[in-house]
Amino acid sequence: MPLSRRIKKIQAKLRRKKIDALLVTQPHNRRYLSGYTPADHDIGESSGVLLIPAHRSPLLLTDFRFKIQAENEVEGIEVMLYPKGLLALLKELLPDLGISSLAFESHYTLHAVAEKMRVMAGKIGITLLPVEGMVEAMRLIKDEEEIAKLRSSVLLNELVFQQVFKTMNPGQTEIDIALSLESTMRRLGAESPSFESIVATGRRSALPHAVPGLVAVEKNQPLMIDMGLILDGYCSDMTRTFVPGKRDAKYLEIHRLVRRAQLAAINKIRAGVSGAAVDKVARNVIAGAGYGDYFGHALGHGVGLAVHEEPRLSSRNRKHLRAGMIVTVEPGIYLPDWGGVRLENIVVVREEGCEILNQDTTWLDI
Amino acid sequence: MPLSRRIKKIQAKLRRKKIDALLVTQPHNRRYLSGYTPADHDIGESSGVLLIPAHRSPLLLTDFRFKIQAENEVEGIEVMLYPKGLLALLKELLPDLGISSLAFESHYTLHAVAEKMRVMAGKIGITLLPVEGMVEAMRLIKDEEEIAKLRSSVLLNELVFQQVFKTMNPGQTEIDIALSLESTMRRLGAESPSFESIVATGRRSALPHAVPGLVAVEKNQPLMIDMGLILDGYCSDMTRTFVPGKRDAKYLEIHRLVRRAQLAAINKIRAGVSGAAVDKVARNVIAGAGYGDYFGHALGHGVGLAVHEEPRLSSRNRKHLRAGMIVTVEPGIYLPDWGGVRLENIVVVREEGCEILNQDTTWLDI
Repeated sequence: MPLSRRIKKIQAKLRRKKIDALLVTQPHNRRYLSGYTPADHDIGESSGVLLIPAHRSPLLLTDFRFKIQAENEVEGIEVMLYPKGLLALLKELLPDLGISSLAFESHYTLHAVAEKMRVMAGKIGITLLPVEGMVEAMRLIKDEEEIAKLRSSVLLNELVFQQVFKTMNPGQTEIDIALSLESTMRRLGAESPSFESIVATGRRSALPHAVPGLVAVEKNQPLMIDMGLILDGYCSDMTRTFVPGKRDAKYLEIHRLVRRAQLAAINKIRAGVSGAAVDKVARNVIAGAGYGDYFGHALGHGVGLAVHEEPRLSSRNRKHLRAGMIVTVEPGIYLPDWGGVRLENIVVVREEGCEILNQDTTWLDI
Repeated sequence: MPLSRRIKKIQAKLRRKKIDALLVTQPHNRRYLSGYTPADHDIGESSGVLLIPAHRSPLLLTDFRFKIQAENEVEGIEVMLYPKGLLALLKELLPDLGISSLAFESHYTLHAVAEKMRVMAGKIGITLLPVEGMVEAMRLIKDEEEIAKLRSSVLLNELVFQQVFKTMNPGQTEIDIALSLESTMRRLGAESPSFESIVATGRRSALPHAVPGLVAVEKNQPLMIDMGLILDGYCSDMTRTFVPGKRDAKYLEIHRLVRRAQLAAINKIRAGVSGAAVDKVARNVIAGAGYGDYFGHALGHGVGLAVHEEPRLSSRNRKHLRAGMIVTVEPGIYLPDWGGVRLENIVVVREEGCEILNQDTTWLDI
């Protein structure tokens, strides 16, 4: 879908709700609607906001550091700078554009900033309307162009894993492997990792969010690698667990159980099934074997421009999946005194089932 | 200062203001007060919050993924999980603890979350109070233990630069050098870079916000490297500019001018002088030589657990510096058709002057 169609959809929504404009502060939403690529270093350090009036073409408001990049990246969107800060510009600009009601993204605006906006809006007689998820609702369903980008991201991520796997050698630390993953990602053309890689050896693999350490990878113990990259804006996310050296019966039991749970979930996924129902199928497999207490997180999450987005495959998501949604399927078992196994793939929800974007099953079926 | 003393100071402040508890959501503040190290992947994906009641010991509220890490890292702080989310836990916990007024960090709470908290607070009859910078005010002044950590971070950062410098070779791209910096940081024990390294060659060094590209480093042209790492939580931040190959008279003129501006600022810094006054001294040196229009950013910023924090050395900061503050001193000159030179060191404000934490002057005095 061309970006201009996305903008038009938002404008139509604003007109239906009788809102004069939407201020887009969330970086992925900004990119989705404008093509402007910078991430924000921090929510307190914005690289710009998109102002979408209901009745005229949008504006990208930013500061001098991003002027050239903004002008190169956006089309049909006027770039305007705010040398005295965003609020000072809005105070002048909103009345000029005849905007008297402004929606802002409540879920990506700091409380302190919203308070300052409220004061500014009061001075110029503008109504502020907090909204949540207006753009995210569009991002939830991916079109085939987006699915193709996700697929490329997933395949490049697999290629990175394969290349790094070949160069792995005894004596490497978790950090060595994490660095090797990240530099291979960038050399093969990724914009960046989509999150900080997890590389966890032995018992450390029982920490579901382990940070790589200066810790030598243990032979004959589980090694968990959770990695992802950003390609053309779209995030991949994949976990593989395996044993450098010899795996024992216990490892095989746990690994195969996690894989069975993953396949059961994948078989369940299709349009019309709830996120909770999919989570339950995988959880039942693991609980049925007596490990229910050791699978303490949700089964999966949406992925797209953000590495974690809606929908969730979790007991709390009663909503039905819809065709074009993209989710991870990542059951895991974590035994504190032994280690953990998590296996994670990405699938596209289709009307009659789902499409697995991952191709490499080397480390899944053992 | 032991963490328990920091907690006690906050509790004393709460009691003076007659507030029953403070909810700490900002990740650096959380670490400063508790020793709990995780960063947040995103403001919407917290790895936990610290609840500090005025009259009893604090609690770290987190989820299952961080349980083991939290229990390992904190002392004298009860770890409690929120399987149904933070708000559901607070709704039960606050009345149990007899808390009827709760301060929250307005500058690190999303508007949408604050609204949900307001509804929850209404139901259980609790008063919510937005506060800004209560913990940051403490972080502003570093004690000798923190200064020692900052010093170690600065020295390790210099060592990384020296090691990478030795391995630099013709044909390398900006990205090659950036990756080499980051992997050397981690191999030498840094937690992570403190920001994405800037490596900018030739005219690209005139872009104040350059992102490393697949661009070969040009011989006989300026090369600007702005890099920092996190060691034991504390951030370093250093810029060096030099010329691979032969430097010409123009380069020498600009470089020496920037260095003179830096030294003038360093000579001015001491407790009781304003951030604006220090900025002005450096700016006057550069403006006096006719380059005033090409130094378009503030002279420096505070550094500590965050790589950018208060105080600012900028024309807008009229407040006096105080002993124990730590700031960068980083004048620069950026000529669009030529390139840029920025030189950045970190200093500690002392009563009678300042202490430069950097030791290596190789690329400063030329």
